Amino acid sequence: MQSQFYTLTDYPDGLPDRALFKRETQTLPDLAEGEVRIRNRWLSVDPYMRGRMSGVRTYVEPFEIGKPMEGGAIGEIVESKDPSLNVGDNVSHMGGWRDIAQLPAQGVTPLPDIDVPEQAYLGVLGMPGMTAWTGLNVIAECKPGDNVLVSAASGAVGSLVVQLAKAKGCHVVGIAGSAHKLAWLESLGVEPVSYRERTAQELSDAIKLASPNGIDVYYENVGGICLEAALSQLNEGARIAVCGMIESYNAKTPTPGPSNLSQLVVRKAKMQGFIVADHWSSYPDFLNEVAPQVAEGKLDYKETVKEGLESTPDAFLALFDGGNTGKMLVKL
Amino acid sequence: MQSQFYTLTDYPDGLPDRALFKRETQTLPDLAEGEVRIRNRWLSVDPYMRGRMSGVRTYVEPFEIGKPMEGGAIGEIVESKDPSLNVGDNVSHMGGWRDIAQLPAQGVTPLPDIDVPEQAYLGVLGMPGMTAWTGLNVIAECKPGDNVLVSAASGAVGSLVVQLAKAKGCHVVGIAGSAHKLAWLESLGVEPVSYRERTAQELSDAIKLASPNGIDVYYENVGGICLEAALSQLNEGARIAVCGMIESYNAKTPTPGPSNLSQLVVRKAKMQGFIVADHWSSYPDFLNEVAPQVAEGKLDYKETVKEGLESTPDAFLALFDGGNTGKMLVKL
Repeated sequence: MQSQFYTLTDYPDGLPDRALFKRETQTLPDLAEGEVRIRNRWLSVDPYMRGRMSGVRTYVEPFEIGKPMEGGAIGEIVESKDPSLNVGDNVSHMGGWRDIAQLPAQGVTPLPDIDVPEQAYLGVLGMPGMTAWTGLNVIAECKPGDNVLVSAASGAVGSLVVQLAKAKGCHVVGIAGSAHKLAWLESLGVEPVSYRERTAQELSDAIKLASPNGIDVYYENVGGICLEAALSQLNEGARIAVCGMIESYNAKTPTPGPSNLSQLVVRKAKMQGFIVADHWSSYPDFLNEVAPQVAEGKLDYKETVKEGLESTPDAFLALFDGGNTGKMLVKL
Repeated sequence: MQSQFYTLTDYPDGLPDRALFKRETQTLPDLAEGEVRIRNRWLSVDPYMRGRMSGVRTYVEPFEIGKPMEGGAIGEIVESKDPSLNVGDNVSHMGGWRDIAQLPAQGVTPLPDIDVPEQAYLGVLGMPGMTAWTGLNVIAECKPGDNVLVSAASGAVGSLVVQLAKAKGCHVVGIAGSAHKLAWLESLGVEPVSYRERTAQELSDAIKLASPNGIDVYYENVGGICLEAALSQLNEGARIAVCGMIESYNAKTPTPGPSNLSQLVVRKAKMQGFIVADHWSSYPDFLNEVAPQVAEGKLDYKETVKEGLESTPDAFLALFDGGNTGKMLVKL
């Protein structure tokens, strides 16, 4: 059986060039004991993947040049040499960026028996959802009544953060760009604030208008002027959960940070980065809390879907251009 | 009785001009019930006072233009209308920047009965010492064996942080400027690193040489290239206690922050500001632990002493120019 997959031909400098992603075909070797073969139906593209596109090890190994890229995926077992998984099982795994994956059964997880669309396990009930839940609850220690600010608030992670915070009884402000994203946030009961064509000071003023009682929790996905504006509006004892700083991922030269970091002292605030993988033991707790809300339609989530394996690089690149509302997915 | 004191004639922009500090004389009103009169012997000048020299409330009220300035001081009660304090008592209080203070007894604390020079209660056993201890232990959660980095490591706070960390069994790197400061740090068993004439990258390389196993705890007093260099060397789960960022206190225009804040995510690190006043209930614990070490000469502390009330503004301004080793004091 053949597998089509993407490789990187080189590590990019700045925003990756489309030409760096190369589609290749391989005839898969015979299945070894303990392996399974999966026909993928959904692939995930996520901002964190940019971090794997440099030769430097961060918290995860870099993609290897010329080797199949990886990422979250949902598919169906078509062949199994492991007793724990059977042909026909629907599973999630990390063998994305390809149509047919052949993997050790160890890293392959059957989908839970919950009445949601299967691609939800790449988004609202998957890594992005777990990231939203962990950052808000564990890192930022969000409490009912907190004033919560979220950057990239209409993204896969941010759009869940705002809703989880609303469900907790928080006042929630969401930063986004385009009009339809802001309108969606407003429909969720979130105070929408645009970052477009604004200086940090102007964005700070807009946040103050939207949250006159300051900010107790800031969920950070962006960096740049969003962070600077947020720092200016912190209340005493504020907590900043740093999920990511997409603004800097493609920077060719270092971009300066906020000039007002000393607000951390003035406001006795905490700023903490985290990686969701470290918290995966809490995934069942997350699922118990959030899956019923998704199944009952109480949690609104959006998907931006591109069709076909060949659209995967463009889907990934669109993440850095505001091209997605909610979770960006590729449907095979 | 007359009191001589300093006032601010205006809020400074940038490094305060010496002419903004005005010495004035007042005939003190009769002592009211519950008040005491104190002849000061020692005055403290501290970097945080710069924050009170703007019209903006931060965590403490700004100095009022034309009113006596305030600060830590040690003196002797010369008149008392409060039963808890007697003439001849040696006390610490916040009526500094003056020779004779007249205050409600409430904010006046008799010195503990420990065999140390009385001015130690403005430094190693006072606010700076408590700040060092709190930041290292409570905020940065320093553990034996941690690799600890301290900026402004020969200052009133930093020089205690390095010694408390050494006493805990940590590997300690201290950043300072002049040769005699670096030599003192080395004599304390600290790896000395100079920031002088170095870029952030060069400073980062020097820190790596001094601490090949990375940095678990960074005690931040400075900001600027010190922070950027420290962020580059963080280990996973590192904790940054932000005591202050003296580098920016006199900035007339906002100075950009570090370009590598996303290291907080990559290293899953925490950066937390604090104000020692919030932790003052732990002062007895601090005193129990640290005072015996000072009395027995196990903790080395330096003082830079200026003589006479009229030297107070210059003593304060010298803090921003590396003019002190250890605690800067004014002796009356």
